[in-house]
Amino acid sequence: MNTDPLAEVLAESRAGREVFHTRLKTYLSCQSVSTDPAYAEGMAAARSFLTDLLTGMGFSGIRELDGGVDGHPALYAEWLKADGAPTMLIYGHYDVQPPDPLDRWTTPPFDMQERDGRLYARGISDDKGPTLIALEAMRAYIAVQDRLPLNVKILLEGEEETGSPSLPNILKRNADLLSADAILSADGARWRSDLTAVNVGSRGNGGLEFSLRTADLDLHSGRYGGAVPNALHEMARVIAALHDADNRVTVPGFYDDIVMPDAATEADLHAIPFDGAAWAGAVGAAEQGESGYTTLQRLWDRPTLEVNGMWGGYQGAGSKTVIPNEAHAKITMRLVQGQKPEAIRDAVKAHIAALVPPGIELTFTADRGWTKAYAVPGAHPLLLAAEEALFETFGQKPVRVRIGATLPLSDLVARELGIDTIMFSFSTADEQFHAPNEFLRVSAIDDGIRAWITILDRIGKQSPDQYLPYRQK
Amino acid sequence: MNTDPLAEVLAESRAGREVFHTRLKTYLSCQSVSTDPAYAEGMAAARSFLTDLLTGMGFSGIRELDGGVDGHPALYAEWLKADGAPTMLIYGHYDVQPPDPLDRWTTPPFDMQERDGRLYARGISDDKGPTLIALEAMRAYIAVQDRLPLNVKILLEGEEETGSPSLPNILKRNADLLSADAILSADGARWRSDLTAVNVGSRGNGGLEFSLRTADLDLHSGRYGGAVPNALHEMARVIAALHDADNRVTVPGFYDDIVMPDAATEADLHAIPFDGAAWAGAVGAAEQGESGYTTLQRLWDRPTLEVNGMWGGYQGAGSKTVIPNEAHAKITMRLVQGQKPEAIRDAVKAHIAALVPPGIELTFTADRGWTKAYAVPGAHPLLLAAEEALFETFGQKPVRVRIGATLPLSDLVARELGIDTIMFSFSTADEQFHAPNEFLRVSAIDDGIRAWITILDRIGKQSPDQYLPYRQK
Repeated sequence: MNTDPLAEVLAESRAGREVFHTRLKTYLSCQSVSTDPAYAEGMAAARSFLTDLLTGMGFSGIRELDGGVDGHPALYAEWLKADGAPTMLIYGHYDVQPPDPLDRWTTPPFDMQERDGRLYARGISDDKGPTLIALEAMRAYIAVQDRLPLNVKILLEGEEETGSPSLPNILKRNADLLSADAILSADGARWRSDLTAVNVGSRGNGGLEFSLRTADLDLHSGRYGGAVPNALHEMARVIAALHDADNRVTVPGFYDDIVMPDAATEADLHAIPFDGAAWAGAVGAAEQGESGYTTLQRLWDRPTLEVNGMWGGYQGAGSKTVIPNEAHAKITMRLVQGQKPEAIRDAVKAHIAALVPPGIELTFTADRGWTKAYAVPGAHPLLLAAEEALFETFGQKPVRVRIGATLPLSDLVARELGIDTIMFSFSTADEQFHAPNEFLRVSAIDDGIRAWITILDRIGKQSPDQYLPYRQK
Repeated sequence: MNTDPLAEVLAESRAGREVFHTRLKTYLSCQSVSTDPAYAEGMAAARSFLTDLLTGMGFSGIRELDGGVDGHPALYAEWLKADGAPTMLIYGHYDVQPPDPLDRWTTPPFDMQERDGRLYARGISDDKGPTLIALEAMRAYIAVQDRLPLNVKILLEGEEETGSPSLPNILKRNADLLSADAILSADGARWRSDLTAVNVGSRGNGGLEFSLRTADLDLHSGRYGGAVPNALHEMARVIAALHDADNRVTVPGFYDDIVMPDAATEADLHAIPFDGAAWAGAVGAAEQGESGYTTLQRLWDRPTLEVNGMWGGYQGAGSKTVIPNEAHAKITMRLVQGQKPEAIRDAVKAHIAALVPPGIELTFTADRGWTKAYAVPGAHPLLLAAEEALFETFGQKPVRVRIGATLPLSDLVARELGIDTIMFSFSTADEQFHAPNEFLRVSAIDDGIRAWITILDRIGKQSPDQYLPYRQK
């Protein structure tokens, strides 16, 4: 007889693996594309599937939460019978990206197929597979022990792929209902398939759009050429002046408030096996960035200012001999620890204004985003639980990594609910998210369920008091 | 009874003014945009209109001339019954610039409308109005006298707005057919509405288009930002580096071969009443250009390098956090006396190549134009006839001026046919050529027809022998 309760839960899950695959295939057959109203039926089908599954697992309080305006509701469910144990808000999303271009899929996007140790379907890695892995861990736990070791609130969003427009309102309107000690997210992705890692931070972001105007209209390059300003020359000068020869951003004060990670964290970063030239070469790019930093530092520790679009003048076939009177640019920043979004925004705007010569009209036409960088506190109990679970599962101490991208969820829940987020997804970043032939490694299912069973167990052994110092509301 | 034959021709023309306006409106309704294949039907409609008009006027030998490859044919017609009189090749072009941006037109670009003494339509000043003015002078002459005072060959080009790619071959293949004593051009423009002037020179031109590529695809600005090149940053650096702080072109050798006009010509230039700040201010621009030269020198004596279009990345609504992998630019140069087009082209390409860092792919995708600057000899009989006609029409001696723009024709016919060109257009340079709301002053129609009737008369009183010293073939 197996007397280790965790081993019994694992055995239950393994015994149910074939049923799990069938369930996954059914969930993936729901065509829940949130961006396109033509898929409304698939969105409803995914909610119905999840409602039935959660009900069968013994969850209660199941309901739809909306932001008070048009949009796809989030699904909520709870299991709150673990008196004295911490409460986790477990996050996932049931919407997926559009399957287009359909002709690039080897097998149909909404019919899960296995090939060479990989399962292919739209949404399998982002985020339906990882969500069902988390739910399967809970199902097995309840099946064996008729209980969970912790209190769980589940929030499954329906608008993650469209930028979560309703989520701020959903959090605001249901702050008490969603109150928890921390968020454990089934979304996100493992950085690499060859490294056991836990993500502890992400960069913030913000964006500006601006236009330059040098004359009332496009001018003939013969009749005016050489004697009036050209909006594209001026835009090129402004954009070129935003970085120096060392690829540093020239905005005064841009780097002033940065809090670089401590020496131990930096030592850990440098210890990570990483071939930057190969990483860039895989997408046909050179390894290039701010002088004095490695590629991982550039991605994790250092901020950026990137031009995402720049245009003006004639773009059609052939030639048009105009001196363009208008030029436009969209720029976004990625921000790191210590940088204050509003201060950066103001500094960038002031710098651009200073770069534009007199007589040329500068207009800022948009201002978007402005979320801070996010970092999980190094001693956060949920981070420690995640590290233990990964160690148990993979037999090696996970490396703490960060991502250069922005996780709106982390910033949002920190602001609205005052709690921290740990991403605990078992998809991997190379699994063609948002692209044709999205896949999930079959091995991720075993690993993921085991890690989830373990982390639930570890959290169950913690006290809510351990979380109190980290709760800001 | 009116016994002055010229006065009778003028009266005939004035009597037909309403018919002329209707004819002009019809011609302008032909959407003859040469640069875009979508307008092929409009190009054919313009040719058909001109063929009917010339046939009705009594011209013969009407035919299309092509360069032997794909392209828009030129239209040819002749009236050669003035034995012993000089033969003029009269030039115009029936193609127009694209009407974009359409939303900036007050009234539709292909529907001529009159407002406040101005006629608005795409191509009305460049070059359909001036062409019909020249033809109307001939029509009235023939209607009254049943003859022309000189021999006329008409060449109406269909590719002027795309740099005349077929014209060299058209001239080569039809050198005998097009043989004449000089070219009298209905293209070009009066410099100012307040100055009677004759143009004696123009700048040459040439264009390049190129692309930069920094990666195989657009990259996520979070996952790659700060650690790989951005094609738009690189393009901005290249474009910004093409001019220095004194607005001089940085291409090595760019200015080396320039032959500046002699002291007398420069003294004439400085004597012309010209308020550069007001001139630029009229189009909402600042007066800005190469250090050490006046605005007139910048326009007439000095070469340029202008970016006509520059683009890459996301231009749509909202934000897209990409690192663009491609950037594109269209540039054109205006060349002055002494500059060798091929040498300039090679120097500009080499300079751009030197500005692009290793690891970034540079591709030149187009190479267009490359015509030399042009100047009419000071005692040329056609120049003298033009000055007489302008004196007769406006009652004041015309000032000799130049233009900063390019007539590919002048350089080409000097090379291929060995003859000189006088531009005798009655549009004015401020009439929004190539831009939205292109217009022609209604008064230019009276003035232009009168001047054309007079110059035809004056040439008819000259002998072909006067032209011999200037014919190089």
